[in-house]
Amino acid sequence: MAVVGVIGGGQLARMMIPAAVALGIELRVFAEAPDASARLAATAVGDYRDTAAVLAFARGCDVITFDHEHVPQEVLRAMVAAGAAVHPGPDALLYAQDKLAMRERLAALGVPQPDWVRVESAADLEVFLSDHGGRAVVKTPRGGYDGKGVRVVHDAHAADDWLADGPVLAEELVHFERELAQLIARRPSGDSRPWPLVETVQRGGVCAEVIAPAPQVSGAVERMAAEIAGTVVHGLGVTGVLAVELFESTDGRVLVNELAMRPHNSGHVTIDGSTTSQFEQHLRAVLDWPLGDTAALARWGVMINVFGALPDAEIVAALGHQPSAKVHAYGKGPRAGRKAGHVTVIGDDLDDAVYRARAAASHFDAL
Amino acid sequence: MAVVGVIGGGQLARMMIPAAVALGIELRVFAEAPDASARLAATAVGDYRDTAAVLAFARGCDVITFDHEHVPQEVLRAMVAAGAAVHPGPDALLYAQDKLAMRERLAALGVPQPDWVRVESAADLEVFLSDHGGRAVVKTPRGGYDGKGVRVVHDAHAADDWLADGPVLAEELVHFERELAQLIARRPSGDSRPWPLVETVQRGGVCAEVIAPAPQVSGAVERMAAEIAGTVVHGLGVTGVLAVELFESTDGRVLVNELAMRPHNSGHVTIDGSTTSQFEQHLRAVLDWPLGDTAALARWGVMINVFGALPDAEIVAALGHQPSAKVHAYGKGPRAGRKAGHVTVIGDDLDDAVYRARAAASHFDAL
Repeated sequence: MAVVGVIGGGQLARMMIPAAVALGIELRVFAEAPDASARLAATAVGDYRDTAAVLAFARGCDVITFDHEHVPQEVLRAMVAAGAAVHPGPDALLYAQDKLAMRERLAALGVPQPDWVRVESAADLEVFLSDHGGRAVVKTPRGGYDGKGVRVVHDAHAADDWLADGPVLAEELVHFERELAQLIARRPSGDSRPWPLVETVQRGGVCAEVIAPAPQVSGAVERMAAEIAGTVVHGLGVTGVLAVELFESTDGRVLVNELAMRPHNSGHVTIDGSTTSQFEQHLRAVLDWPLGDTAALARWGVMINVFGALPDAEIVAALGHQPSAKVHAYGKGPRAGRKAGHVTVIGDDLDDAVYRARAAASHFDAL
Repeated sequence: MAVVGVIGGGQLARMMIPAAVALGIELRVFAEAPDASARLAATAVGDYRDTAAVLAFARGCDVITFDHEHVPQEVLRAMVAAGAAVHPGPDALLYAQDKLAMRERLAALGVPQPDWVRVESAADLEVFLSDHGGRAVVKTPRGGYDGKGVRVVHDAHAADDWLADGPVLAEELVHFERELAQLIARRPSGDSRPWPLVETVQRGGVCAEVIAPAPQVSGAVERMAAEIAGTVVHGLGVTGVLAVELFESTDGRVLVNELAMRPHNSGHVTIDGSTTSQFEQHLRAVLDWPLGDTAALARWGVMINVFGALPDAEIVAALGHQPSAKVHAYGKGPRAGRKAGHVTVIGDDLDDAVYRARAAASHFDAL
């Protein structure tokens, strides 16, 4: 029986449990706390920056993978040096950890992305601002997520606090029609499979809703997205699931916004909407097992994030209101604004699926 | 967070885990051994006939349900007396535990079933044989499953060994076109929902294959099956999932063969083929939560049982061969002839789905 170790006990690790149960894979989670979302599969509790603890955990696993991208390079490399199969590996994960490294590498691969520059000083930012209509998006290279570590600036000194800690990334503020996400999985031995392109609706820098496939998308955009994801997954040597967050710009470009090297919020719709969910595919991919069919089970899938909490009484109300809705609760204690679950509805009519998903989600806090 | 306790740690308890993870239900399993199929969710290991151990387990759970029907009535009634919510309850489970009680009760409800008689002696059996062409199916009232405790007899003394232990059930040997199963779930507060009628293909008294929905079934047979299941689930006060195994006889009758008051092999196809799987519905039902939509996700679903073992190398071969096949391994040690997993394929063309399911299952031992 294959043993997959997951570092991090959040909802992504939690949602790997059903796929592992089905395929007879033993999942072991290295969790940050005993009450982590993935606590059912936790076999160790510790700090993912503690090399000795992580190495001890890795020793019993056939493959190591991740719930998040925050494990430091030195810990990743210590596992590899100790002979562990780490997927995605440190050389790939670097580009999900460091946005400057990612922009440099994607530029070298010729992947379309927003104009960007490495900013070392207010003077650098001044130049970039004057070249881009006086506006820019500034990002810390590390540690940002869900809108954190990201700022829209109009002033060359608006990132001075961050610059005190080192260089930052400045990007053009892209005028976009919408945001898209292209999910793809790749095995270490090379084979890769994308899912259909999806549209992601962000509110306040956080994903609120996903529609699969992206409605009324042109064949050209679909091809660009698939080509970009293929170039990135192979070019960066990503193993497991890669999510490429994209802008569809008002001037017809498809540009890479962010990368995530793990199952991703934009792929939760695959649990109920795809022959192979992103969680099953991730486990298959990191084990170098054959990848599954990524066809949709219905014409449309709609996923809505839920924040704060999912009390049983509200779950019961949502299930009673919409018998076709699939409610997913992450087993977290209540905390305002934190992703706590999601709701998915699939169907052959988009308006109807959106209606049913929103009706079910209306019983919880959404964005 | 609702806590559901499951007595028994077999594959049915195991397959409740993904549904519990999704809905944020805490599942606790009382397993017979530390290496039970559902070991991931085991919080106690013990003997389900040990009243004190079962009561201690039940104390922390909101609802108690079952992986099997073997928990003795006295243990069930001790839980009820202690204030536990037990679903299905002892009064219902009696009819899944005692085939003579079941036949008597179904007769009182007017449910169509094979001719049967309570046999106390060889003389009783002699009379039944002479009335039924010299052939009968004899069953021990308790403990039989998967062809065990069942004998086709032609001689009045062929059940003498069983009769030494008490009365047995004799039934007419039904000439049937095929076997069907009608799955239905019911909440304690009354609401019930059936799934589409399925065909089960048995080999050697054991389920080999299930096709959902039953192909080329007449509207009359569909209606009779749904009516029978509705009568039984309400008449016997079953809560949770009820499987009614049926014969479609050559003379146009639909007759009850067996009852199971739990998720059932004939419903495994619902995991990948239905909006709401039997495992999710069972948890919702025993918690008295609203029942989910039981519509199929594709026109056809085909489930094939796998016996003996599912070594990783064969899982890999099956997944590589059929990327659309869903392989389920029960995490059991190898044992010849024991159900060890199943394979499901869904699709819009029956021949194609059967072909793909059999191609995937061909990598394992089937019947």
